[in-house]
Parts: sequence; C-alpha cells; structure tokens
Amino acid sequence: MTGGGRVDLRAPWAPIPPMRFFSDNAAGVCPEVMAALAAANHPDTAYDGDALSQSLDAAFSALFGTEVAALWISSGTAANALSLAAMVQPHQAVICHAEAHIQADECGAPEFYTGGAKLLLAQGAGAKLKPDAIEALAASLRQNVHQVQPAAISITNATEYGLVYTPDEVAAIGDLAKRRGLALHMDGARFANAVATLGCAPADLTWRAGVDALSFGFVKNGGMTAEAIIFFRPDLAAATRYRRKRAGHLLSKGRFAAAQILAMLDGDVWLRNARAANAAAAHIANAAHDRLLHPVEANEVFLRLTGAEAAALRAQGFEFYDWVPGVARLVCSWDQPAAEVEALAAAIGAL
Amino acid sequence: MTGGGRVDLRAPWAPIPPMRFFSDNAAGVCPEVMAALAAANHPDTAYDGDALSQSLDAAFSALFGTEVAALWISSGTAANALSLAAMVQPHQAVICHAEAHIQADECGAPEFYTGGAKLLLAQGAGAKLKPDAIEALAASLRQNVHQVQPAAISITNATEYGLVYTPDEVAAIGDLAKRRGLALHMDGARFANAVATLGCAPADLTWRAGVDALSFGFVKNGGMTAEAIIFFRPDLAAATRYRRKRAGHLLSKGRFAAAQILAMLDGDVWLRNARAANAAAAHIANAAHDRLLHPVEANEVFLRLTGAEAAALRAQGFEFYDWVPGVARLVCSWDQPAAEVEALAAAIGAL
Amino acid sequence: MTGGGRVDLRAPWAPIPPMRFFSDNAAGVCPEVMAALAAANHPDTAYDGDALSQSLDAAFSALFGTEVAALWISSGTAANALSLAAMVQPHQAVICHAEAHIQADECGAPEFYTGGAKLLLAQGAGAKLKPDAIEALAASLRQNVHQVQPAAISITNATEYGLVYTPDEVAAIGDLAKRRGLALHMDGARFANAVATLGCAPADLTWRAGVDALSFGFVKNGGMTAEAIIFFRPDLAAATRYRRKRAGHLLSKGRFAAAQILAMLDGDVWLRNARAANAAAAHIANAAHDRLLHPVEANEVFLRLTGAEAAALRAQGFEFYDWVPGVARLVCSWDQPAAEVEALAAAIGAL
Amino acid sequence: MTGGGRVDLRAPWAPIPPMRFFSDNAAGVCPEVMAALAAANHPDTAYDGDALSQSLDAAFSALFGTEVAALWISSGTAANALSLAAMVQPHQAVICHAEAHIQADECGAPEFYTGGAKLLLAQGAGAKLKPDAIEALAASLRQNVHQVQPAAISITNATEYGLVYTPDEVAAIGDLAKRRGLALHMDGARFANAVATLGCAPADLTWRAGVDALSFGFVKNGGMTAEAIIFFRPDLAAATRYRRKRAGHLLSKGRFAAAQILAMLDGDVWLRNARAANAAAAHIANAAHDRLLHPVEANEVFLRLTGAEAAALRAQGFEFYDWVPGVARLVCSWDQPAAEVEALAAAIGAL
Repeated sequence: MTGGGRVDLRAPWAPIPPMRFFSDNAAGVCPEVMAALAAANHPDTAYDGDALSQSLDAAFSALFGTEVAALWISSGTAANALSLAAMVQPHQAVICHAEAHIQADECGAPEFYTGGAKLLLAQGAGAKLKPDAIEALAASLRQNVHQVQPAAISITNATEYGLVYTPDEVAAIGDLAKRRGLALHMDGARFANAVATLGCAPADLTWRAGVDALSFGFVKNGGMTAEAIIFFRPDLAAATRYRRKRAGHLLSKGRFAAAQILAMLDGDVWLRNARAANAAAAHIANAAHDRLLHPVEANEVFLRLTGAEAAALRAQGFEFYDWVPGVARLVCSWDQPAAEVEALAAAIGAL
Repeated sequence: MTGGGRVDLRAPWAPIPPMRFFSDNAAGVCPEVMAALAAANHPDTAYDGDALSQSLDAAFSALFGTEVAALWISSGTAANALSLAAMVQPHQAVICHAEAHIQADECGAPEFYTGGAKLLLAQGAGAKLKPDAIEALAASLRQNVHQVQPAAISITNATEYGLVYTPDEVAAIGDLAKRRGLALHMDGARFANAVATLGCAPADLTWRAGVDALSFGFVKNGGMTAEAIIFFRPDLAAATRYRRKRAGHLLSKGRFAAAQILAMLDGDVWLRNARAANAAAAHIANAAHDRLLHPVEANEVFLRLTGAEAAALRAQGFEFYDWVPGVARLVCSWDQPAAEVEALAAAIGAL
Repeated sequence: MTGGGRVDLRAPWAPIPPMRFFSDNAAGVCPEVMAALAAANHPDTAYDGDALSQSLDAAFSALFGTEVAALWISSGTAANALSLAAMVQPHQAVICHAEAHIQADECGAPEFYTGGAKLLLAQGAGAKLKPDAIEALAASLRQNVHQVQPAAISITNATEYGLVYTPDEVAAIGDLAKRRGLALHMDGARFANAVATLGCAPADLTWRAGVDALSFGFVKNGGMTAEAIIFFRPDLAAATRYRRKRAGHLLSKGRFAAAQILAMLDGDVWLRNARAANAAAAHIANAAHDRLLHPVEANEVFLRLTGAEAAALRAQGFEFYDWVPGVARLVCSWDQPAAEVEALAAAIGAL
Repeated sequence: MTGGGRVDLRAPWAPIPPMRFFSDNAAGVCPEVMAALAAANHPDTAYDGDALSQSLDAAFSALFGTEVAALWISSGTAANALSLAAMVQPHQAVICHAEAHIQADECGAPEFYTGGAKLLLAQGAGAKLKPDAIEALAASLRQNVHQVQPAAISITNATEYGLVYTPDEVAAIGDLAKRRGLALHMDGARFANAVATLGCAPADLTWRAGVDALSFGFVKNGGMTAEAIIFFRPDLAAATRYRRKRAGHLLSKGRFAAAQILAMLDGDVWLRNARAANAAAAHIANAAHDRLLHPVEANEVFLRLTGAEAAALRAQGFEFYDWVPGVARLVCSWDQPAAEVEALAAAIGAL
C-alpha cells in the first residue's frame, strides 16, 4: 500500500505553512519535465507516432543494456494492470503480497484488465515477498481445473513499506518463477528510489534477475502524468499496444508523455531526484531511530507515534498519514525542502 | 471515424515546411493551458483531492446551468467508455452509428469497459443518426433473452464527418430515448466546434435535449491531456469514480488535468479556439464548393480528390488523410496559421 | 438465427393435437439416450473423471480420423462461446455472418466468454459466408491499434437458413483463414444434418478443410442436455477445461452428459436421426416448391406464406414460426411423425 | 471447499467392491428424478417456455411461503456466480470465508460472472462466518475509490466442513448485511442437509433471516443436472435471465431440468434424501467420536487419521479424500447403502 486515498489529516487552519510529508504524489513537477513539455509544444503526429514516442524503445534499451519495448502510460495502476494482463489469462492468477499496491490500492485494476484473474496473497515482513512464502503458497494449490493456477508473480521494488529488494533477492524469485513457469512483474512505482539506494545497474535489478516486465514510475519522482511499461520480453508488447488503446490510455497527444520520460532519463534526472528523496528520508530516519517500524531503504519512513506525539508534530505544521493506529507514514519527495527535513528530524528527536 | 491511426501520407522529403491538415490531434497546446500547468506546479493533495479538481463540478454546473458531476479523464476514448459503462449492463447494448468513433476507432473500448456489451449499428448520412433509423433498429430486435437489448444511444456531435446536430435534432433523439427507456450519451470530442457553429447554449444541446452524459473534448481543441465526462444525472458519477480508478485513469497528480480544463473554460477559451478552427474549415470549404462530400459544419472538410489532385496538393506541402479512395479528409486546428488556410484554399481552387 | 425465443404462435385452443414444426429444440429425446442415462445411473467419479467422460477423446478421434480433444458441454451457446474464447483475445474479433446464431441469438455470449471481443459482420445469402465477403470485410479494416483485428472466422453448418457448406466450400474459407492467420470455428448445431445431406466423411467437412474447432450439436438431434466441443488442435483444449469450470459448465455428474453423446455416436444414431429430420424436410420442400425462400438442404424449410395462408395452416394444427412478415420457418425433428409430415405437405400443396 | 477435483485415492485394484465415501457428487440419481425425466420426454416448448419451467416460481414460492423467482441452472458454480453477479458490480466485492467454495473450488467463476469483482476473505472455524469476523473485515477497508468496496456477503449452509448455520446465526449476519447495505447470498449446495438437520422451515433459514438469494442444491442430493437459484427479491431475476442465456446456461430442452427439481420437491424427496445422508454421517460420527475435526451436522465427516490408518481403511475398500495431511474427508450420499455405513463405522472403531 502506498496510502492511496488515505485521509489527509492536515490542519486546514495551520498558522504556519504546511510541511508536506504525506505523499510523493503530492509533490510538484521537476523543471526538466516542465521544460520538455514546452519544447514539445508544436504540431506533430498524433498518438504515439511522433518522434519522441518512437524513441522510447531505444532510450530504455540503452538504459537497460538489452532490447526492450517501452510504452508510456498515464498511471502506475494502468502500468501494473497492463503488464499483468500481458502475462496472465482470465482464468489464472498472480501471486503477490497481501499488502501489494495492486491488491490494496488499485480498486481491482488487475481484475479489470486481466478479465477476472485472481490475486493470490502471500505474506512477508515489510510487504516483501520471500521465495519460501511464494513456494508455500504455490504448493498449497491443487493443480486441477477447480482452482485458478498462478501464471505470474508480482513484486514491488521499493516495497509499499520502503524496503528494497537487492538484485540477488529478485534473482531468487526470478529463479523460482522460471522453475514454475511463471512470469515475473515488478511494480516499480519507486524503482528509481530502489536503484538509487542500491547503486546497481538497472539491468541487474530487472531482466538479469528474471523480471519480464517493469512498471517504471516517474510521476512520484518529479514527472507530471507519464509512467513507463518496460517489457524485457518485447513480444509481450504487441498485444499490450492494443490493450492500451482499448483502455483509453493511448493519448492523442502522446508526445507530451514521451517528453516527460525522456527529460527524466536525460542526464539521469530520475536518479538525481530519487537520491534527493532518499537522502531526506535517511536524515529523518537517523533522528527517529528507535521509532522505525521498518528500515528506511528508500523515501518512506514508518514511525511509531502515539496519538499525542502525532498531534504534536501536526501542530508544528508537519503533514503525514496515520497509517494504522500508532503508526505514521512520512514520505519525502524529490523536492522536499532541506529546511523541512531538518525541522522534522529535530521535531521527532525532541518528542 | 476520426481517422484514428490512419496512415499519415506526408512526404518526408517535403522541400517546403509541411502544412498539417491531417488531424486536430496533431495540433499544439494553447498558451492558456501551458500557463495553467505552470501555475499548478506546486505541492498539493494527490489524485482528485486538490482544489482544482474539486472545483470542476461547480465550473461545469455554471456552464450548463444545472447541477452536473464532472470528472477529468485522459482521453476521449476513456470518456466515452466510462460514460457508456455507467449506463449499460454487460448483457445490454448501445445503439450508435456504424461509423461512430466508439465503433470504428477505439479498439473495442466500450466492450472492455462495459464488460462485453454490444454496439448495435445504425446507418445515416454523414455519420448522423436520425430517430427513424434508431427506431427501425430497435424495432428489429426481439425482446427476449436471446438478444441483447439496448440500454443507451450514443451520438457524436459534431459527427465523425463534421456535421452538427442541432438542439432540436438532439431533442428528437432524446425524446425517443426517454420513450424507450434508453439513456443518451453524446460523444463530444468536437462538442466545442458544434457549439461554436450553432451559437446555442451548451445546455440546449445537452441536458435540455435529453442527454444524460457528455464526453466533453478539450484535447483536439487546444488542451494537452485532459477531457471531461459530464454527467447530467449526477448519480451516475458515483460508480464511475470507482471505475475511473480501476481503469488506471485516476491520475496521482490530477490537478494538472483539472488545470487544463479550467484554463479552457475560463474566458471561453474553448469557444474561441473552436471558432478559429471552424472558420478555417469554412474558408477552405468555400474554395472547394463542388468537391465537398458533406456540408462543412465544424472543423473537418471531406473533399473529393483524384489521386493526381491529392498528389498535387501534397507536392505543395499540404498534409492530410486519404479517407477512402477518391476522398480526402482535411482537419483545421485551433492554431492553424491563416497563411496555411489561405494557401490551401487557393491550391484547391487552382486544381 | 435459429429463431431463439421467437414467439410461439400456436393456437392454444387448437381443437386437434398440435403438429410441431417450430423447433427441433422442442423435440423429445431419442430412446438410445434415455437408455444410456439409465445405464449410467450408478456411483462413479465426479466431474469428468469418470470412464465415460474420459472416453470422449477416443470416440471422437475415431469418428474424425485424427487426434482430437472433446469436451461435453450443456449448450450450443456455451460450445460456441468457449470455442471462440480459445481462439480470440479480448481485444480481437471474430468474423461471422450478420445472421449467425452467435450474433443474433446468444445474448452476447461470445462477448462474455471472450472478455469483450467484437463480432465483425459479413453478408451472404442464406446466412452463408463466401470467401469474397470475408476478404472484403478483412480488407476494409485498418491494421492498427485503433481497430480490433480479427483472429477467427466462425461459420455455421448447416446455416441458420438450412443451407449446407460442402467440404470444398469450407476448405476455401479454411485456406483464406490460414493465409490471414485466422482460426476457423464451425457452429455445428446441425452438423449432423449437414453430414447426413452431404454423405461425406466428418473429417472432410472439418479439419481436412481447415476447421480448428467444432461445436458438435446433439440436443436438437435427439439428445437431452449434451453437446460437444471438438478441438482439432488439441492444444486449444487445455485452457478451455479451466474456462469450462469457471463458467459453471463442469457438471458434477458429468457422466450423464458423456453418456448421451456416446449413445448417439454408437451405431451412428446421430446420422440416423439427422437423416430422418432431413427427409421430412425434403418431403415438405417438394410440396412447397415455388414457395421456398432457400433450397432445403437440411431440416429447415423457409416458406413464403401470406398471413391468410399461415392462418390456414395453423387452423389445421400446424405450429411454426413467423420468421419475418411473409415468411414462415418450419423445422423437422428427428422424431417428426410421418403422418404429420404428410399432412403438412398436403396442406401446403392445397393452399 | 468441498474437495472439488481432489485426487481420488481409490485403489484401482481393490479386491472387494469399493465403498464410496469420497463425494456426494459421485452418487447416483434418485428414482423419482429418473421417472420425471422419462415423463417429460415429449415435445414441448423450448428453453424455459415449457409448463414445467414456468411452474418453478410457484413451486418454490409455496415452499418458502413468499413470492420468489426461481431459475433452474446446471451447476452450483453457475448458481453461485449468477447470484453474486446480480448483487455486485464489477468494481465491488463479496465478503466470504477463505475456504468458501466460491473462493477455493470454482476456478474464479465469481470473478468471471461479476466482471472482475473481488472476494474479500474472512476467517472462522469450520468455514463458518461469524458477524464479528465480517465486521472486522469490513472495518479494515478504507471507504474510498482506491479499494473495492463490498456489496454482498456469501455464506455456505451447510458449510464446506459440514457445519450448519441456525436461523439465528443467519439472521445475525442478515442484520449486519442490512445495516451495512450489503446483499446476502447463501450457497446451499447442501441446503437440504442443513434444513434436514435443523428441522426448521426453509423460510426461517433464508429470507426471514435476511437472505436475498439462495443457490439451492439438488445434484449432490439425488438430482442429475439441475440446481436452482432462488431470488427472494424477485427483481434480481430479470437481469439474471439474460445473464443465464449469455452464459450458455439456458438449456434448449429446459423442461428436463425443471422436471428434476419438481420431482425432488414433490413429496419432500429433497428432505428424505438429505435425512438419509445425514443419518449415515451421524452413524459414522458416533463411531469416530474423538477423531472428529468438526461436529458432524450434515453429511460430511472430517476425521483425524494417520497415514497408516487411512491405508488400513482403504485396504478394506473404503474410498475417501485425504483432505490435508492427517485429515480425511468422508461424505455420505442420499443412497449410501446401510451395510457400507455399518462397515465403515465398525472399521473406524476398530482402528
């Protein structure tokens, strides 16, 4: 879960300007993206026939060091659902974590796009799947027509609790997937944050580890309306191009989506932004050491806070989610002002 | 049909700058929209919880003079499909023209969003439905469980051939719909062009004439990525908000969609842009009088051209679609340079 | 169309016993089937694990002279829809005749089972598709993501108007299908009647002519509740077994379905029954010569009758459908009493 | 779960006739049903236009003491899925037990029929839902568009482990459902066994306790291929009649389905058969007292058995399922021979 639609508990009467830590979705758009939108603003071919859209395959193939098919798409939910629909028949299933975004925060998008496939839910600390949990779930199924059979695994990196799968951890799941004949999808709404933390090659975290399709997030990381679906098996893209149109996701002025993505790939803006968000979260984590629910490996901080403590922080202008009673979620954005981060760290330390 | 995906027959070697008349989707974004995007670029609440998104209902209620529910959406295809899904059960049908965009250019989006409802196809010159044709189609159905029964009618205004339904013409269909218990949807990808031509109140062309839901197009008319669904029966919106999320169309930074729409409503930019496009088309039509396949009532011109004539125009730098053999489609955009329009009119006159 | 759900215009006050010619669905069950049901009435393995169900593949493989996968199924509608779902993705289409049962009489079953695929409608006299009509339809489609692309052709043999495709006619369509990469389905609700007329090997009318899947009808021909899906590409069966379960069509006492089918294959009861129905229809056709709308090649007779003539026949106790104004449909069943056939022939001759 | 498709561990070489306790689906058909099929074997109107089908509403309205709409259907899976589709939109959810048949044994039929609705899984001993568990699940959901919202509850009576909900227990769930605006469905594959145990009026266990739709099972209880869907809100039936056709479940010779059901209602054959099965299970339970995993309240017995003990029973000719390691499921049928029951009781006692 990324807190989709959780109630925003800002004090509307806040006497001081609010300091927003409730979602990286709430952040602004980075200047490179704004500039790219302006630069793209001239007549061009419609849909994805323009030069920018047509260059995505090459740009991502270069980034990943292998031939990929890349499609822009308006949301991470659509990226995930279209990826899964490319891998799973309606009578099959996807294995994912019980707290995965696709299960808990997408209003049934996978079911809609796949035509009614099931999500089979496994457990794991910090919303992280381990091979053992996947194996146990798969082994519990009777292999006959009375039960839906899994055809794919979906993992989220960084996870919904801000944990990062290492290349080795992904590869272990990739091996399992291959052994069982399952496809492997990675929900990378915060893929940039994971790569920034790991310092690894994007390839090591994806296709070299057995990932077949990646939802590569840009919006939380400084984009406006464009995410990317990366198929490491380019053959999966052909039907997806039809499905994207059929879902109303083939924008008629698609060049403005491509422009955003290319602007963030250029000069590794995507990594720069993610590093900034991660560093802010790390700074807060340092101040909140024994309150951490999970290690902080990306840009999300889950803190144990009493109601009184949460209220005290809010009174100082900090906005964040009450995740569950006694736990707050704070998310740092690519553009989080350093002063806000300092202030929050200090305020937590002073609790 | 609006020519979705038709081959762009531009001469890539064109020695002179191309003059684009092949699609209003290819046009740029108007300055008011660009400015609004920049103005919206600060942190705010995610999804549609921001102030801009929350003001859409009021803005459109004011425009239409009645209480409506308004949702931003990324594409006309999604606007149409979500509107129809709000009106039609999976075992039912939509009556539309055989050349309607929803039938011919959306890759089955209505079938996807409705869960497999059928489109029942009627005929009519210029892709325009007349009550008689609808009645004849409805009367041909056996009213039993062996056939899908219609639950809605969908018309396109302006039509796929640039014809305009008047308020009276819509009302005649609205009456028929009410009498038969059918909902009425209007695909208004070029609604602005229709209103600009008619000079009527938007209300007269929609809810006062029996329309229950309108896909209100902004992208072809100067927007970037935002269309609107207008429900004149606001109760239809509740489920649609879930369906929009489920379809991956609830953008996480939705304020950038709302901003585009509000910028075009403000000061009637939507009408100004549409009038410009219409005027350009009218100018060309005047020069092409006896070649016109249909009266030019919006911003599209369908011309009879021999292959040699089409080649002659292309040699002069004009880009357009070969609609069917012997017929060309030329579309004028909100920002079509006057010089291009003059040049095209002259070139056609000189054929 | 087979007249699904058309109003039964029997005179309820008929002073003489009614003579039913309105549907072969209304006929009884042949004695071999009733005996087989009784013989199967002992405990056995559930679903399709019983010996009878397990023997279907072999029985049909022998009949068709090639290895097939055969599944019992409760209705022709389900047989058709499951066959098409095995061939067509949700974003694709099936080419069929505008009056095909799958289009006109199954309440959208193909759309339901395929997840919203489209039926693309071709024309042809007597609901019979010719290669030219299919080619013209296919050629009219733009091959891009804006339009659904066909993945299969479905033909009905005997057609909804009782015409029979010869092996050569099927092979011509099969060649076209192969050339265009389309699968070929045959709705054989009256396959038995077609084979009985043609006297050909079942193989010649199906897989040797390019058919990939056949809905093999038994119910209209003397069965009770069991039809068969025959996959000539046995690989198509694997997913269909899941889809059948998922659709609630995997009967828990499936042996009673298998028993019906095996009883009708045994000793060629299926051909005997079909020949009887065909002969009855031929007898009536002989008497009705210049009134025939179509040649009578199976067990259906379409007659031009004025309202007064229709009333006159009904007054004599004959029951049938008014197909469209001025046209009556009369269907002969496997158990149509000879006296009824004689009486009808005489009554028509006397009009 | 009812063990759908679990491996049948009969010894094929069994030197003595097998004694089948592995499924009531494996039982034969009771003589009243066979007689009714024979009696119905004459020409009649097709589909559900015949007199038998048309009398179902009245027959079940009499049984339940209120006006209901009743539809025959070929399987319990289809009965469940059609019932749920009448109550739940594609973007909504059904609350059920994690081991409910609709979740674990129907290959995703609810997802297929509802167009991708979710099953939300609650826990409870013996696959029995308690109001507290339902409340806790419902309360855990955020009520916004990011999560699917429940629209119905489904319970199974008798449960998948042979436990029976009393009228009061159902009413407690019915009250909860009404309070939360949820519909209530009962999977009554073994409804007869529950009523036979409770000795209550069928009305008390259903509509008087808040049930809106019941899947009323006949096949496990002596029928051949006919179950019934009972709508206590008859308005739910209208769309279901279309959905039934669309799913290929409107049998063309539907009178043979109606005949089975009417034969079992007549003279309370359904209760007589269920009482016999229950009594057999009770007899076995008496002998197996301290091995029982759950109280035996219907016709299923879940026993703790070591591998050696299970083998010992099988060596004596008893057939049953290994449910999970260390647990066997034994099911008694309506026609279980008394000698087999005695022998099994004795064999268990002698372990």
